[in-house]
Formats: sequence, structure tokens, C-alpha cells
Amino acid sequence: MSDAKGRVLLAYSGGLDTSCILAWLIEQGYEVYAFMADVGQEEDFEAAQKKALAVGAKKFFLENVYLLGTSLARPVIARGMIAVAEREGCDFVSHGCTGKGNDQVRFELAFYGLKPDIKVIAPWRIPEFYHRFAGRQALLAYAAEKQIPVQQTAAKPWSTDENLFHISYEAGILEDPDITPPADMWKLTTSIEEAPTTPERISIEFKAGLPVKVTNGAQTYTDAVDIFNALNTLGRKHGIGRIDIVENRFIGVKSRGCYESPGATILRAAHVDLEGLTLDRNVRSLRDQFVTVELSRILYNGHFFTPEREFITSAIPASQRTVNGLVRLKLYKGNVVVEGRSSEEGLYDEQQSSMDELGGFEPSDTTGFIQIESIRIKKWAQANIRKGQAGVEPKDVYGTRI
Amino acid sequence: MSDAKGRVLLAYSGGLDTSCILAWLIEQGYEVYAFMADVGQEEDFEAAQKKALAVGAKKFFLENVYLLGTSLARPVIARGMIAVAEREGCDFVSHGCTGKGNDQVRFELAFYGLKPDIKVIAPWRIPEFYHRFAGRQALLAYAAEKQIPVQQTAAKPWSTDENLFHISYEAGILEDPDITPPADMWKLTTSIEEAPTTPERISIEFKAGLPVKVTNGAQTYTDAVDIFNALNTLGRKHGIGRIDIVENRFIGVKSRGCYESPGATILRAAHVDLEGLTLDRNVRSLRDQFVTVELSRILYNGHFFTPEREFITSAIPASQRTVNGLVRLKLYKGNVVVEGRSSEEGLYDEQQSSMDELGGFEPSDTTGFIQIESIRIKKWAQANIRKGQAGVEPKDVYGTRI
Amino acid sequence: MSDAKGRVLLAYSGGLDTSCILAWLIEQGYEVYAFMADVGQEEDFEAAQKKALAVGAKKFFLENVYLLGTSLARPVIARGMIAVAEREGCDFVSHGCTGKGNDQVRFELAFYGLKPDIKVIAPWRIPEFYHRFAGRQALLAYAAEKQIPVQQTAAKPWSTDENLFHISYEAGILEDPDITPPADMWKLTTSIEEAPTTPERISIEFKAGLPVKVTNGAQTYTDAVDIFNALNTLGRKHGIGRIDIVENRFIGVKSRGCYESPGATILRAAHVDLEGLTLDRNVRSLRDQFVTVELSRILYNGHFFTPEREFITSAIPASQRTVNGLVRLKLYKGNVVVEGRSSEEGLYDEQQSSMDELGGFEPSDTTGFIQIESIRIKKWAQANIRKGQAGVEPKDVYGTRI
Amino acid sequence: MSDAKGRVLLAYSGGLDTSCILAWLIEQGYEVYAFMADVGQEEDFEAAQKKALAVGAKKFFLENVYLLGTSLARPVIARGMIAVAEREGCDFVSHGCTGKGNDQVRFELAFYGLKPDIKVIAPWRIPEFYHRFAGRQALLAYAAEKQIPVQQTAAKPWSTDENLFHISYEAGILEDPDITPPADMWKLTTSIEEAPTTPERISIEFKAGLPVKVTNGAQTYTDAVDIFNALNTLGRKHGIGRIDIVENRFIGVKSRGCYESPGATILRAAHVDLEGLTLDRNVRSLRDQFVTVELSRILYNGHFFTPEREFITSAIPASQRTVNGLVRLKLYKGNVVVEGRSSEEGLYDEQQSSMDELGGFEPSDTTGFIQIESIRIKKWAQANIRKGQAGVEPKDVYGTRI
Repeated sequence: MSDAKGRVLLAYSGGLDTSCILAWLIEQGYEVYAFMADVGQEEDFEAAQKKALAVGAKKFFLENVYLLGTSLARPVIARGMIAVAEREGCDFVSHGCTGKGNDQVRFELAFYGLKPDIKVIAPWRIPEFYHRFAGRQALLAYAAEKQIPVQQTAAKPWSTDENLFHISYEAGILEDPDITPPADMWKLTTSIEEAPTTPERISIEFKAGLPVKVTNGAQTYTDAVDIFNALNTLGRKHGIGRIDIVENRFIGVKSRGCYESPGATILRAAHVDLEGLTLDRNVRSLRDQFVTVELSRILYNGHFFTPEREFITSAIPASQRTVNGLVRLKLYKGNVVVEGRSSEEGLYDEQQSSMDELGGFEPSDTTGFIQIESIRIKKWAQANIRKGQAGVEPKDVYGTRI
Repeated sequence: MSDAKGRVLLAYSGGLDTSCILAWLIEQGYEVYAFMADVGQEEDFEAAQKKALAVGAKKFFLENVYLLGTSLARPVIARGMIAVAEREGCDFVSHGCTGKGNDQVRFELAFYGLKPDIKVIAPWRIPEFYHRFAGRQALLAYAAEKQIPVQQTAAKPWSTDENLFHISYEAGILEDPDITPPADMWKLTTSIEEAPTTPERISIEFKAGLPVKVTNGAQTYTDAVDIFNALNTLGRKHGIGRIDIVENRFIGVKSRGCYESPGATILRAAHVDLEGLTLDRNVRSLRDQFVTVELSRILYNGHFFTPEREFITSAIPASQRTVNGLVRLKLYKGNVVVEGRSSEEGLYDEQQSSMDELGGFEPSDTTGFIQIESIRIKKWAQANIRKGQAGVEPKDVYGTRI
Repeated sequence: MSDAKGRVLLAYSGGLDTSCILAWLIEQGYEVYAFMADVGQEEDFEAAQKKALAVGAKKFFLENVYLLGTSLARPVIARGMIAVAEREGCDFVSHGCTGKGNDQVRFELAFYGLKPDIKVIAPWRIPEFYHRFAGRQALLAYAAEKQIPVQQTAAKPWSTDENLFHISYEAGILEDPDITPPADMWKLTTSIEEAPTTPERISIEFKAGLPVKVTNGAQTYTDAVDIFNALNTLGRKHGIGRIDIVENRFIGVKSRGCYESPGATILRAAHVDLEGLTLDRNVRSLRDQFVTVELSRILYNGHFFTPEREFITSAIPASQRTVNGLVRLKLYKGNVVVEGRSSEEGLYDEQQSSMDELGGFEPSDTTGFIQIESIRIKKWAQANIRKGQAGVEPKDVYGTRI
Repeated sequence: MSDAKGRVLLAYSGGLDTSCILAWLIEQGYEVYAFMADVGQEEDFEAAQKKALAVGAKKFFLENVYLLGTSLARPVIARGMIAVAEREGCDFVSHGCTGKGNDQVRFELAFYGLKPDIKVIAPWRIPEFYHRFAGRQALLAYAAEKQIPVQQTAAKPWSTDENLFHISYEAGILEDPDITPPADMWKLTTSIEEAPTTPERISIEFKAGLPVKVTNGAQTYTDAVDIFNALNTLGRKHGIGRIDIVENRFIGVKSRGCYESPGATILRAAHVDLEGLTLDRNVRSLRDQFVTVELSRILYNGHFFTPEREFITSAIPASQRTVNGLVRLKLYKGNVVVEGRSSEEGLYDEQQSSMDELGGFEPSDTTGFIQIESIRIKKWAQANIRKGQAGVEPKDVYGTRI
């Protein structure tokens, strides 16, 4: 009987790796259910389902969620898997992530944060598995043996992960950080050289920090997913949102990754700009140091279902209460140019800001402000002078170059 | 006798405002020396000297320093002024900054941080002055009365400040944040639409975080100022480094500013990228949170000659010890594209990073890592489940949209 | 007619200063209403009311609020004053704070944060006032002239401010930071030498971070104010909560202050201890860096009614969700000794913590954890060795002493 | 031949555990050298040496270093071990730390940070070892078999670690966080009840943040170790420096620990107090947020020989440049009471601080300061009023209790 060891819910992609893992798990005596998530990527889910069942999966589950970048997609997929695993009485969950990357951590910490007693099978960390399948040839041979259909196209010399938010590229030839990614690698965006020679102008409206309306000529988009899709289409067309960086995986290994995030890049430019107009200076500074830095680390490292994520995100709504308004953008050959922004919030006051007229306060008040601001600094300068240490020179810091 | 009230060293620009201030100070009974700093801006210093002396300045001083953005240029100029004021026995220093901006604060805190007993005359904060000269017409009338030559060109409807690092634009028509800056405002950079249609490729080499060599085809630049000038020329040509933002002045007023920083934008892109390859993850994260955020605030608010600046900058050398290597860039229509980077530092290890081979550690070690990482999270999840609060939903944070 | 200049609501204490200010404001042509807040201090409010009316106040308002330290009491009083000022149609608010302290800032920023167009009269910053009343003798003479009754007791050579949370002492002989405060200065607490020679044991129960029950032998207290009063009584008896520090006023002046906070010191010791047992490590660390540090600064500097305070406090509830349990304390001669703590939260797991038994995870997992944790460090050490910079010595930091 | 597997340098304590590990390593075929560090604890090193050699160690090394708390002692010992291991050609280093604690991590990360290719044997994480010696009885039986002498005193129901800085207690009966530690556990300090009934007064002088002189009546101490020893003696006598907390081990397990740090507690109180007088406000605040918080975490987690520790400590000297002066203390029954402090630094200015006289600036300047400080807050309040959200109530945060 095939399920002597218990029932496994496998995060399945339809590709060579997870198909081999599916077959291998069955071979090891598990009953396997396959789970796929539609997170906005371009994929033939029907074909994947057929393949999974053909390889031996007992059931196939497709979850439809629209969610963000790789780091955010993982906890969302994990939540779907735990829900299915509980409903279907699975004893294990499994995934095809390698033992060196971030995604294994993101998946498993999310599993444990939702169901602390779940058991995880990670074949790429099981010596028996990774020694047996050391290299693509071994996988292909196993696929042939198990009659797993393999796409005839040659494998690309890098690996990718795609969702609504972006696509990522890593591994293979990209592992040399001095190799320029080949032009045909970039899947989503037009190259900046080939992007249209005519700029396109759009506007985005935000309420409480969330985009609620995109206007492009006569067309408007108001549904959250429609907005994201429309911005993705525009960003792709104008070559917006490619990056190529060396990052630091959670396990402490430096790694080179390339990303295309067309819509998100436009959205972020607009959001950051509108915050300049509508967010109080001190709130913005605290939010940047606290929420932005810490939440990025938390999400990157896969700590979504944790008390610290719960704590940090609890502060977001208060930070976005005043982020209401409209940003006008020009899109052109990789550039997102803010051409103007407006808001009813009233934290910006043209008259007060004006250099040409009095407004809001007397210029002489500023004298008092500077006098008080300098009390502490004057004391320090007096002490320096008394000790012969006055005027700490910038060259102390940067050597003799300044 | 003209110097009954004492001797004033005035930060002089040659323009209408500081020329009128020069005349007004003399009228008030001061002896005035004029001070100008060459911080890399395009300016006719000789003409300015002639004008200052013609208006009545007793002496004229020109200091030549190559220095950075507006916020950094101010303390450098202030240091030059204090040196001249001490040498020449001036009782006062003076400047023509308005009572609403950042530059008055930057100048004066720097004066006080170097010479705590210096006295400052800031005419635009003296009611007698600002009520008398309320508007450009009053200044022009006064200039005519005092025979101050005025350039015949109409005043631009914005004000600018320029140095080696960048040029800034503010005030006038820019005070409406929804007005797109006119194409002819941008002085340094070609527009992205008119920039060359052919990309240009260069490389920048860094030692201990500082750029030491720029290579553009057969040309190389190794002197610090040459490097900056070469990158400025390239950035201007390719439309690189324009920004348009709403910022928060130190006095708490929101203000719209436009900037062109062509060379600095290229340099920053290269430096940030090389840090990805050569800087330890934890050092980078601490440096970002500590040095970057705090030093930006310190410089923006004019706290250069302060104990906190001394403290923060003392940590920079240790952070840059390993930032050695070469970055290859493509410049094209506003984009600075990193095409590759290399370093001898060795923090990046291709084999260890590789998804295709074992390297540096056993994949099974990661299982232990994840088990230990999840101890705390499992405890929290168990407590949640016991209290019926399991699986904190993202919708708690973002409402019902996710 | 006495109110030609408008109606002023004056923060009144009943003492010499604010009584003279009351008389002076009337003399200047204002109609004055007096406002007092009962924030838990020991005070004869009835006598103060009689005095205010006798000196010439048209109305007297007493607000009863139980609130916290000096820095928190100010915004609470300010809120009461603004409510009265709006209801009673006052054109101004006024206070008797000096021009050098923190309280003027706390009062006025709170006024402006609630009613941005309110006008403030701060006599101690009006040259006409502070030059006229330069010294206590001038105030006494004026009081005599205006028939303001003055208490016959000699003035203490320091000034105090008291509320439910604490009493503060500053100024006078305390301005020399090397003068030990005289034994008879301390008003609330028994000295540690004279405190009982027998310890007293109590317990405090917390729910969601708030104290909900204090048990002292057979007595229990559950009302928030009762709890605070009971802990104040215990702290006073056992000499708990005196401090003597040099602090930094918001205006940048260093200042010496002494404080007695008996109940608050007990409460804080218990709360901090219980968080050790019940709060997740990462939440605690982020809360400390974010909420604790920033909120302290915000409150100290009087920024209560600001967007940043609203933002920061929005994160508190999520941080305290799990802070439930009981702390047992011993109080003895200035010491608050935690003798034990318990909670149903379950983040602490005796078996898992135990050094004597296996629990929760395999010790061999830790090997993987350390291997992965050391990947980054090994790379750095290898680079150091290659460059001959291995083993950065502690003496680099502390000189030759280690 | 006994060293077929190679040579191991074992961190040896002389106790039951490491003696059994010594015998077991020999049994496994290793040649073992024993290493002990004198970090200031009370110990019979000669007896330990005899015992190690009797059990079979080929060599014995004693290193003499005076160093700090448990977390700091580990990297110091590790550095000594790596030096011996390199000199003596050891293939392995070994220690007797359990698989659940912090010390294993601190040892091993320090080993790897100094010598990244060193191999570590941690018997308590080797299943073969920890299953064989599951419990004290198995160890005792093995000791008998191997003729390892065992002290006849019954084992204490907790474990300890001691050095110059402090002693720590954990495990055993302490694992119940609600058990009050028995009076006879505390080894260093007199209980506060039994401490002298007469206070003792001392003074400590600091230069650049380091203690350089302790004066106790006619006695003075100026050598760093003498200072620490003298303060330890005083602290022990007066019952100073006991704490009992629930902490969070690096591996994420909550754990209860008790500590006695008599001298360090006195030193810290004096140092913190002197910083109030001599350290600029902004430097102190940045140092607290950056150096204190981050360095504590780094040291606690054993990341001493890492790039981030190197980075953080590089900022310490600049922060301590002005910390010069004298602090007078009263020691009494667990209390360290600051009675006065003085310094020549001059950042504190009695006249400027004084509430009774003008000094350094005009009170009317403060009006300008407050006006400018309130610009931003008034704008926010106006927006709130316009939106009907004025006066965010404290009850929003704390519920209805305030």
C-alpha cells in the first residue's frame, strides 16, 4: 500500500524537480497530494495538474491568490497548504526548495508559525535524495524511468520564480556577479533601448496609502488586482523595474539575483513621492527606521507568521492615515518621472513654504529657534576651544582628500 | 566713519540680494568685507569681486573648495568664513539666507560650532530689513539708488544654488507641487528624451569605499576632483540625476525642491552595488540604520560641527575597509545600469552560493538551522492555537483587500 | 473695563509666581480665569481657589485627572485647559513656567496640537515681565502691593512639581551637581537608612501589560488609581524610587533633577520582569528600540499631541497582547526584588529550557544552526587571514588595557 | 596508539562533565590537551591540572586573563585556545557546553571567526555521547570506571559559571521561574538583609570613559584589575548586584538566570551618572540606540570576532572623549546611591541651567524656538480639525482607563 508512511502535501510547480520529488516520495512509501498556487505568474495550471496526476499524485489543489514578491508569496502559499493539509488530513508537507536558498526558510517558518506540529519533508536537504540526484542528468534519467514528461526545450542556464509582483532570476550563469545578464533572459520587460521613444503619462490616486485608481488617458482602473495588472503592463512596455544585485541570503551566503518588478516600481515611486507631500516628517522618519527596515528584514527572512511581524504591521495604518492624494507620472525608457502631485491633506502650505512672502510665522522667530538649537553646540565648541580641540576637521574622517 | 558698529564678513554671491545687503550693512554703519566660495559652481568670480568692491566692500575673499551638496557646502563655506573672520578681526559674520530655509540654520550652527561667541547678522530675519525690502521691486529700487548694477535678464521664476555636487531649484513657480518644472529650468542635464540614443559604458574602481579610478574607453581619471568632474560630464550628457521631491525643512515646513546631481547619482549607484558584493550583511544593515539615516539627518539640518557628527563619522572607516573592487556601468537616457562587479575581497563565494553544487556546508545543516530558528515561533504558534488566535491574518493589517 | 485685551485662562498653582502673574495680567488689561488640575498631588485646592478669586480671577476651574509624571501631566492639563478655554470663550491661555525649562514647551506644544490658533501668554518670556520681576524680592513686593497673601514659611532652596506619579526637585542649591540633596528635601519616601528593617512581600498581576491586581497580604487592589496609590504607599514606606540625575532639557541645557517615583518604580520592575517571561524576544527588542526610546523622547520633549506620538502608540497594544501573569516582589530598603513570576502564556517551557533533559529539539540540530550562523563569519575570517588582518584584537578598541 | 584520530584541545573545567569528556575523547582515539582559563574566578587551578593529567590529558595549559562577564569571557578563552591549538598543532578544539545554551555558540563562533577551518568536537551535541550519558548517574558510573576522582559534596541543584565580572546561576531548581532562589545559592554577595547597617562612601574617577581611580577613605586603587577587585569586594559586602531574570537564549529558548555582578553594578551606576554630566545629549542618544543595544546583542549571541563587532566598537572612543570626571557614591544594603558628580568638561553650565537667573540666552529666544517647533504640529492639528479628527485621545491607545 502506497501510503504506509503517511500523506504528504507537496508544493508542486510542474517542473522537473518537483515532478521527480513527487515520484520519489511515492517511491519512499508516501501518499502524495499536489498543491499549486496561482500567485499571478504566467503558467499552464491545467497542464501541471494533468502531469501531477500522471506522475502519481492522488489529488491536486490549485489555490488562487494574488500576492506580492517572492518573499511574500511564500507565506501566502504556506497558509494555503496548511489549510489543505488540515482539511485533507495530511501528515506532512513538502517542497522542492534547495538547501541553500531563502525559500526553504520562508516556507518552513510559515508552516511552523501556523501549525507548529506539522512535519516537513525537504528532499533537497535529505542526503539520500541529494546525493542520488546530484545534477540534472540524474533527474532526467529518473524522469525517464518514471515516465515523467519533460519539456523538450533546453533548460535555461538560470532559474526563475514568478508572481504578480515580479519575476526573479538566479543561479546558473548568474552566479558570476561580473557576467552581464543576457538580453533574452529578461522575460517581462522591454529593454530600455527598445522601449517606446514616446513617453506615456498616467496618474495614480491613493487613499490611506493604498492605490485606489490608476488613470491612463481615458482608461481607469480601480480594482486592486486590475491596478497592479495595468501598472505591470505599462512597466513592461517602458522597460521599468529591472534590477541586478548581490544580496545576502538569510543563511549568510551572498548571492546574485536579477528581478523585474514593473508595476511595483511605478507604484513605489508614486507612493514615496506622495508621502513627501502628505506624511509628517517625524512619522515618516520613524516609519522608515522602524517599519520599513525591520519589515523588509522580517519578510526577506521568512518571518511572516511571527509575533514581530504582527507587532510591526500593527503600526502601519496609523502611518498611512494622511497618505491621500494624486501623483502624476511620466513613463519613459526605464524612468518613472514624477511630474506633479496634489492632495487635500493640507500638511503642505504653499504660502508658508514660500520664500517670497511671510506666512505662518515671523522670520524673527527663527532667530530664537537657532539660538536655542545652538546652546548645546556652543557649549561643546567652548569646551573644544578650551582643550585646544576646536573645529574637528572633516579630514579626520576622510583622510586628506577633503 | 563707516565702521562705527564693527566689521562684518558677508557671505556674498554677486546677486541682487547680497548686493543690497552689502549696501544696507554699510548704510547701518558697518564696515563690510565680502566672502565668496568657489564650491565648483559655474560663476564669474572676477565680476563678482568687482561688483562687491564697487558697492562698497572694503575687502574681497575668494575661497576655493571642492565640495558636495548644498547641505555639505554650507559648513565648508562657514569654516572658510570663520578662518577669514578671525584672521581679519571681523566682529560679525552675515549672510543673505531667508528666514524660512535650511541654509540660514546650516550657516549659523556651523559658525557657532566653530566660534561660539561669533555674532551673526541675518538681515532677512531683521524686521527693519524684511519689512523695508518686501518684494523684488523694493530691492531693485534700492539697487538703483545705491548704483548697484543689476543684470538685465529677467529674474527666473525660481531660485537656484549650485556646487560641484549638484544644483538645486526651489521657490517661485515650483511652490505649487503640482506644477511640472519647465523643460528650460534644468540647467545641467540633457532631458532623457534628448539624451543620446546610444548607451555609453564605463567602470569605476573603489578602494576602502572611495572612488579611485574611472575608466571610460581609453580615458581614465584618478584624481578625486577629476573623477567627479568626469562623472558629472557623463551624467549631464545622459540625462542622469534629476529629482523632484517634496521635502521637510528643518524648521518643520514642507517644501518642494528639484535637484540635478549627475555625477553623484552615478557614483552612488556604483558604490551601493559594490557594497552588495563586498560588505558583510550585518555591517551593512547597521551602517544603513545608524550612519546613513543619522548622518543624512545631521547634514540636512546643518549639524556638521557637532559632537554627534564627530561620533557618527568615526564609524565610517571601519564600515568601508572591505569595499574594494570594480563596477561596470551602462549609462543611457537617465538610467545607470550595473552590468557587472568584481572584487578580490572574497566575501562572495561562487561555489558556496551555487544552487547546483554542494559548497561550504552540508544542506542537512540547514535543517538544524531552521529547527532552531523555529523554536521561538513554534512556541508562539502553540500559544496562539491554545488561545484560539492562530494564524494572524494579513487582512488584520491591510483590511479586507488581501 | 478690565477685559479690554481679552480673556485669559491661566494655569494656576496657588503659589507666589502664578498669583503675581494673575495680578499682572489683570493689570495689563486682561480678564483672567484660573485653572487648576488635580493630578494626584497633595494640595489644598480649596485654599487655592479662594486665593485666585481674591487676587482677581473672574472664575476658577478645577479639573480632576489622575495622571503620570511631569512630562505626561502637562499634555493632560493642557487638554483640560483647551476644553475650558473653548467652552468659556477665552482668547488666550497662560502659564507660569520659566523660559528655560521643559514645561513651557510641553504646555505650548500641547496647546497648539489641540487648538493651533490659540494664543499663549508666557510672562516669564516677556522682557517687560521678567525684567520687572528679576528675583523673589520683586515678586514679594508686588504681592504685598496687590495684597496677595504669601505663606510665611521661608521658600525652600529648590522648586518642586508633584503628581500621582512622582515629585520632582530642581533649581536652587541643586544646581550644583556635586551637592548631595539634603535629607529633608525628599518629601515622599522614607530614607533607605530609616526604612523598615523587615521586608514586605506583595504580588502584582498584569493583563495585556496593565496592572489589574495588587495583593499585599489579605489586601487586594484592583482599581487603576487604587493600585497606584497602594504602590505609592508601599514605595514611600520602603524608601523606593529616589533618583538624582543630570538630564538634558529639550532646549539643549543640561540640568540636575531629583525625583521620587515610589509606586512607579515598583510597577516598572514588575512589568519589565514579566515581559521577560511572556514577551517574544524579537518583539521585545523592537519595542525597546522603537517604542520605548522614541516614546520617551516624544513625551520628555512635550510632543504628546503630534502625529509621531499617535503613530508610535498605535504599536503598543500588539506588543502587550501576551503580557499576562503574576510577579512576586520583596520590598526592602530601597530594593524591589523579584522573587518569582508565573504566567499561563506558555512562551516559557521548562522542559525545553532544561539543561538536564532533551526537549523540543535535538541537540544535534544546534550543530546545523551554528554551522549556518558561521558561514558568513568564516568567509570574513578567511578574507582577514588572506589579508593578514586576522583576529581583530580587543585591544584595538580599548587600548592596551585588555 | 592513542592519537589516531588527531589532537584535541579541550576547554577543561576540572568538574565531572569535562573530566568525563576528556576520558571519552581518549576512548574515541583522540590525543587530548587540556586548556583552562583563569578569568578571575575562585578556583584551585593546580588541583584541576593534576586531575586532567591523571585522567589522561597529554598536556595542560593555563591562561591568565582578566575578563568580564560570561558572554565576554568566552571569546577571550576561545582566542587563548586557538593560539594554543595553532602552536601545539591541534586538529580539533572541544568544549563541554550543552546543546541548548549560549556558550556553545559563543565558543564556536569565536573559534570560526579566528580560524575558520578549525574543527570542533561538541560531545553534548553528538547523539552517541548524549544518549550514553543521559543523566548524572551515567556520568558518575563512567567516572568510577575511568577512576576519575569526584568531589564527595552533593551536586548543587543548579549550575554556575564564574569570572572576574560576575557569577551566573541557571538550570536545576531555577528552571521553575517562580521558585525564589535559596538564600545559600548566592555565593558572592551578602544578602541585603545581612549587609552592614552603616553606609560606606567611595568615589570613582573616569578618564575617557574608563575608571582610573577608586578612592575609599584613605585607600586608592588605580590599576584596572585592582579597581575591579576593590569594587567587587565593596559590592559583595553591601549586597550589591544580584539579579534574577528570564532571558532569551540565542537559539530562541527562554531561560531563567540569576547573576551576581557586585563591582560591575557599582561601576555602571557611576559611569552612567557621569555621562549625564559630560556627554552631549545627541551623542548619548545615538550611542544608546546604536552601540549599547547592538553591542549587547552581538556579545550575548557570541558574535565577538565578527565584522559587525569591529564596526560597532570602532565608534566607542569618539563617544567617550568627554567622559572625564568624578562620581561620589554611597553603598548601602543593595543600593548604589550617587551623591554627587563633578567634571572639568564644561558641558554643564550652572548659570545657564539656573532657573533663577538669565544666562546664555534670552528667554524670549525660546518663544521663537517654540513657534518654529510648533509649525509642523499646528499644520497637523489644522488638518485634524478640518477632518473632524482633532485631539487624538489617549484613550485610543490605552482603552478607557485614562
